[in-house]
Amino acid sequence: MIPNKNLKQYALKDTAHYKIHGRTNETRETLPLFYSGSGIEVNVTGSELWIDIDVDFDTHEPWVWTDLNGAFMSRQMLLPGSYSLCLFRGMNPDATKNIRFSRELQAMSEDNACRLLIIGFRSDGAFLPVKDRPFKLEFIGDSITSGEGTYGAREDTDWLSMYMGMSRNYARIVSDELNAEYRVISQCGWGVLSSWDNDPRHNLPSCYEKICGLLTGETNEQLGAGKLYNFQSWIPDAIIVNLGTNDASAFEQPEWKDPVTGQAFKQHREPDGTYRPEDLMRFKQAVISFLSMLRRNNPTSHIVWVYGMLGYDLTFAITDAMNAYQEAAGDHNIAFLQLPNTTDMTIGSHAHPGEKSHIRAAQVIIEYLAPILAEHRAP
Amino acid sequence: MIPNKNLKQYALKDTAHYKIHGRTNETRETLPLFYSGSGIEVNVTGSELWIDIDVDFDTHEPWVWTDLNGAFMSRQMLLPGSYSLCLFRGMNPDATKNIRFSRELQAMSEDNACRLLIIGFRSDGAFLPVKDRPFKLEFIGDSITSGEGTYGAREDTDWLSMYMGMSRNYARIVSDELNAEYRVISQCGWGVLSSWDNDPRHNLPSCYEKICGLLTGETNEQLGAGKLYNFQSWIPDAIIVNLGTNDASAFEQPEWKDPVTGQAFKQHREPDGTYRPEDLMRFKQAVISFLSMLRRNNPTSHIVWVYGMLGYDLTFAITDAMNAYQEAAGDHNIAFLQLPNTTDMTIGSHAHPGEKSHIRAAQVIIEYLAPILAEHRAP
Amino acid sequence: MIPNKNLKQYALKDTAHYKIHGRTNETRETLPLFYSGSGIEVNVTGSELWIDIDVDFDTHEPWVWTDLNGAFMSRQMLLPGSYSLCLFRGMNPDATKNIRFSRELQAMSEDNACRLLIIGFRSDGAFLPVKDRPFKLEFIGDSITSGEGTYGAREDTDWLSMYMGMSRNYARIVSDELNAEYRVISQCGWGVLSSWDNDPRHNLPSCYEKICGLLTGETNEQLGAGKLYNFQSWIPDAIIVNLGTNDASAFEQPEWKDPVTGQAFKQHREPDGTYRPEDLMRFKQAVISFLSMLRRNNPTSHIVWVYGMLGYDLTFAITDAMNAYQEAAGDHNIAFLQLPNTTDMTIGSHAHPGEKSHIRAAQVIIEYLAPILAEHRAP
Amino acid sequence: MIPNKNLKQYALKDTAHYKIHGRTNETRETLPLFYSGSGIEVNVTGSELWIDIDVDFDTHEPWVWTDLNGAFMSRQMLLPGSYSLCLFRGMNPDATKNIRFSRELQAMSEDNACRLLIIGFRSDGAFLPVKDRPFKLEFIGDSITSGEGTYGAREDTDWLSMYMGMSRNYARIVSDELNAEYRVISQCGWGVLSSWDNDPRHNLPSCYEKICGLLTGETNEQLGAGKLYNFQSWIPDAIIVNLGTNDASAFEQPEWKDPVTGQAFKQHREPDGTYRPEDLMRFKQAVISFLSMLRRNNPTSHIVWVYGMLGYDLTFAITDAMNAYQEAAGDHNIAFLQLPNTTDMTIGSHAHPGEKSHIRAAQVIIEYLAPILAEHRAP
Repeated sequence: MIPNKNLKQYALKDTAHYKIHGRTNETRETLPLFYSGSGIEVNVTGSELWIDIDVDFDTHEPWVWTDLNGAFMSRQMLLPGSYSLCLFRGMNPDATKNIRFSRELQAMSEDNACRLLIIGFRSDGAFLPVKDRPFKLEFIGDSITSGEGTYGAREDTDWLSMYMGMSRNYARIVSDELNAEYRVISQCGWGVLSSWDNDPRHNLPSCYEKICGLLTGETNEQLGAGKLYNFQSWIPDAIIVNLGTNDASAFEQPEWKDPVTGQAFKQHREPDGTYRPEDLMRFKQAVISFLSMLRRNNPTSHIVWVYGMLGYDLTFAITDAMNAYQEAAGDHNIAFLQLPNTTDMTIGSHAHPGEKSHIRAAQVIIEYLAPILAEHRAP
Repeated sequence: MIPNKNLKQYALKDTAHYKIHGRTNETRETLPLFYSGSGIEVNVTGSELWIDIDVDFDTHEPWVWTDLNGAFMSRQMLLPGSYSLCLFRGMNPDATKNIRFSRELQAMSEDNACRLLIIGFRSDGAFLPVKDRPFKLEFIGDSITSGEGTYGAREDTDWLSMYMGMSRNYARIVSDELNAEYRVISQCGWGVLSSWDNDPRHNLPSCYEKICGLLTGETNEQLGAGKLYNFQSWIPDAIIVNLGTNDASAFEQPEWKDPVTGQAFKQHREPDGTYRPEDLMRFKQAVISFLSMLRRNNPTSHIVWVYGMLGYDLTFAITDAMNAYQEAAGDHNIAFLQLPNTTDMTIGSHAHPGEKSHIRAAQVIIEYLAPILAEHRAP
Repeated sequence: MIPNKNLKQYALKDTAHYKIHGRTNETRETLPLFYSGSGIEVNVTGSELWIDIDVDFDTHEPWVWTDLNGAFMSRQMLLPGSYSLCLFRGMNPDATKNIRFSRELQAMSEDNACRLLIIGFRSDGAFLPVKDRPFKLEFIGDSITSGEGTYGAREDTDWLSMYMGMSRNYARIVSDELNAEYRVISQCGWGVLSSWDNDPRHNLPSCYEKICGLLTGETNEQLGAGKLYNFQSWIPDAIIVNLGTNDASAFEQPEWKDPVTGQAFKQHREPDGTYRPEDLMRFKQAVISFLSMLRRNNPTSHIVWVYGMLGYDLTFAITDAMNAYQEAAGDHNIAFLQLPNTTDMTIGSHAHPGEKSHIRAAQVIIEYLAPILAEHRAP
Repeated sequence: MIPNKNLKQYALKDTAHYKIHGRTNETRETLPLFYSGSGIEVNVTGSELWIDIDVDFDTHEPWVWTDLNGAFMSRQMLLPGSYSLCLFRGMNPDATKNIRFSRELQAMSEDNACRLLIIGFRSDGAFLPVKDRPFKLEFIGDSITSGEGTYGAREDTDWLSMYMGMSRNYARIVSDELNAEYRVISQCGWGVLSSWDNDPRHNLPSCYEKICGLLTGETNEQLGAGKLYNFQSWIPDAIIVNLGTNDASAFEQPEWKDPVTGQAFKQHREPDGTYRPEDLMRFKQAVISFLSMLRRNNPTSHIVWVYGMLGYDLTFAITDAMNAYQEAAGDHNIAFLQLPNTTDMTIGSHAHPGEKSHIRAAQVIIEYLAPILAEHRAP
């Protein structure tokens, strides 16, 4: 390789202009990328651009992807270490290139050592301002929203980071189509009340008010994952909640027992196959509480609960809770939207929605949100 | 035309085999086709087949379409009179042809003179048995289910029979794809509680228990439209209700006044734009009552309420009513399913869903119903 | 039916404005529609429009279709007799409606009694001028261009008028998409040199210079089918020739013998399976002669020979002839364009291209012609 | 990262089973990947797999992509050095994983230092046999076949390795769909007779009989690029030639002058815009010679010349040459197939066919080749 002698190294804070995507702790020297879809975007001249990163994990390696001028360019596994990745080479030095470096992998609650930090850049060009997109969308969900299954062959059944892809995820497709910035808070297997296997600690609401409350351990603490999130810093036009799928699974799974306290949890079906009323009721209460929490922190955002990409089982429970919340709170800025179920034709790896299912779901959300956002912008 | 000297004329009752589609009065010499999609299906040998019909109307002429061996062949306006239509000519006389003659136009509550009767056939072949399809579906709806807008140019805004097309309608597409027989009970502008313009007499539930209760006048009485329907005669595997769209319009339209009694009716919005609670409540009560009526008459049918092809406004009201019904009746054999809204890309004539919108909605219903019907059949 | 007392009857020549489509004899009181896609177009106000026609045939009945404001509205078989068809009723009388009444069926060389004449109209409105479309396209072909197979079920194997559909044909799709008028000269089974079964009289070039030279018999003579065509009356921007498919079949079929003279004709394959050179040569000569005839009569038209919807067998023979013609004539305003072959997914009835195959072929032609027509229009 | 202590290192030649894709020199310790789509495929058990590679270049860095169990998994730039890339981690150790590591970038005649060598693997599993696919396809072409434009935004106009993508290329799509192995010989800007800018040294035929004759310099010589290719080692069922696009450009471009000898070359248009006959003739001669060379080296392969993804300009010249070759050689195992032109809807970066154009072209080739390959296999 003929070395480019004009490359200059920039610490992140010395980079003239850049834009951070995703909920994170922006106060540090190096920038942690916690969630899927979090990343950094720059407009830069020059022929060449490198990004300096720091990576580690115990078992679940992070993946990233890049977009150049809005087009998908690369997707790769990150190995541990502090090193530089070249984002482009040999380009027309005068043109301004827009490049976005993004985390494919969800925040990994099962691997506290997993970290991906942006240290800075190397370039022979200049960093120019990055425009804000006109809209802001927040997506909250489970494995569907983490894009599990969007990569990998249909017969692949391992639970692996490499099958999780924000780049093919409905949230990314919706946001790009609507020209919106997006933030994703999601975790495979988690629900509103409990996880798919009845662990009541694994619910998204309990983490929602922290930057990345689902991450724990010393490293994450240092990175600021557990700090309270500043809801004023980025006010979403709409919040898209895609939860309930794991809460439905919990009714089919065995009891969970707390390894420490021995306390147990389980959602039951009645002998006739219907959901046990008191269990259904605590699920509805969790929905109601979460809606209240969302509204408390996001007074102006339109909230739409989307549901159905892996079955419609809890449609009535969710709408009943939403009706009850609406009546109690007098809050009419909420909606319920079903998404097309995943079929044999649209399924991906690990029995999760494939890219085709995400494209189809995205289309329904795009059509739903477009007029609402247009109205938001109007005044 | 070289006349076919081998044609024999058959009165309907003398036709060896035929299959009637759609709710009708089957006890007469001549068969009235009341609803969209109602018709007659024969399997016949011979080179040529004619159908003898009797047609009249005051202002809204009926249209029909034919399918030959399952493929769309013709669509035409019917002029008044008693006459014969040729359904095919010159075919291989030995082969058995399956032909279906169907009404495109909905039952026309606005034209009591409108009638379409099947008198019999002329053929040089033999009539053979027509197989039942493995499933039965009943569709209940408004102009969407009458296929208004599936024919006609986007800019056409007349309210006309010729724009109503069962042949491009989601109910037809779903049924053909799932290999199901179907019956349609629908009327443009009508709702569960009232019509789009607040006329409380124009609701589907009030007609549901008669053969074709929405038709009145002397002719229709003679034809038997007002007779009680025998729900034992054709037990649907699933009932698809697509209502609520006109009930939502009623909130936007002026008061209706009974021309005779002077009594008025109107669904109101509150000053803040929300639906007035007591008006919403009577809509929900209408949904609950209709569900009870459907269940009373169809104890074993899966009932799915589909909604959204022209907006999602009453999603919460419908689901709230369904939840309340479910809880009160302990009836878990019901579901709510949203259909993709109609967009600029999928709209048809008269601001109604076009063929593309019907195809898309049909796909969602097909995917929803397929496993449910498979289970139904299993035992 | 409540009769419309305001209907006035118009003989064709007394109709203020109308536009004739398709090659025909325009000098008569009543207008014969010879070819598929030939028809009449009017812009008319008023609430109601009828067309007066005269129809007869021995064995092959004509079919027609109508477009209202550019949208497909009806398709039906015509029975023999002189009668009126209603084209629309009950429309807003003030709006101008564009309606087109078109022949679905090809000119029927096998039924000399087959005729379809337009006598006039009945309307309560006024006839307004019909705009010319900016481009003119002439299509010359065989059963593919007659739309055989675009209607009918895949398993239907009769050779029947009702399976021939200009309304789903690539020539119609191309013309509508490019906003062009079109004329079609086509005949099932015919080729450039001979028919599919080696009848050398059944070639399109021999008929090309007459209005509809493939029709014979007394009726057609009276209608003017055999009169020379006036090439100055309608100068195509492009001529699309879709021939060769039947010439390829001739190599596979038995010898044809003239029933009168006893003379025989046959295209042969060599023992090794290749085409016999002298037989191939006479096919090429036929292509060359036809190109010369087309150019002589159409000095300015772009000529594109399209090929492949039912196999690519004669690609080299056609291009070789075109190369030879080009070199000899110095004519560079010609092109060769392959169309996607018909597959299991796109086939229609009678083993012919179905609607999907026509849509796909049309797309290739549209993309090819669009820039050529744009250039034509530029000056 | 928790290190996997069970990883064992395998030199390539010590790897029990693997399958090489693409023309290369298989006699070395380390395996050079010259062409786009060349790579290595293994079936392996174990939880983890790494590949050891050696990379260098002056200016044009290679890119690679991986498929896991047939599904696209990663695409990334390779930096210079000798290092390991992890192909997967954390998988079910018992399952056999099929993984393919492939070069995205074409052989780079403009960067003699560019090399990509496979040294070996590291794994905790066992290497199992890799099945041959039932068919073999050879693709010969220019930038279209190098996949230029399949990555990158539409407005990107640099000539860069990262925009060249075999993973989205028609040759890859065709081969995967037909379950065929493939080899690609291609070079951006080159033609049959000369390059797009009239350099007569830049023609594919001159390189065809060497392993990778378009690469020169010391490194490539050591790697064996210039050695004669053994045509017996891999006999293609079909050869797909996609050339002519740059030969058409040469008629529009200025004269090229040899920097050493000063000799000039240029393809001319006549004043009337047509191609100068003697220049066209030498292009045709080049086509004829190339066909002879292809046949000499591949006596049994079906040869199809595909053309049109960037314009149809030389259709007649190519078919004329093919006709002449066919007549002279008596070789009927050749065909000419046009591909749909690239449109505004299907274009990619650098004014080259985008992924959509490749998918569409692939479909035509798949439909063309499928029956031919089926026949090949039959006996």
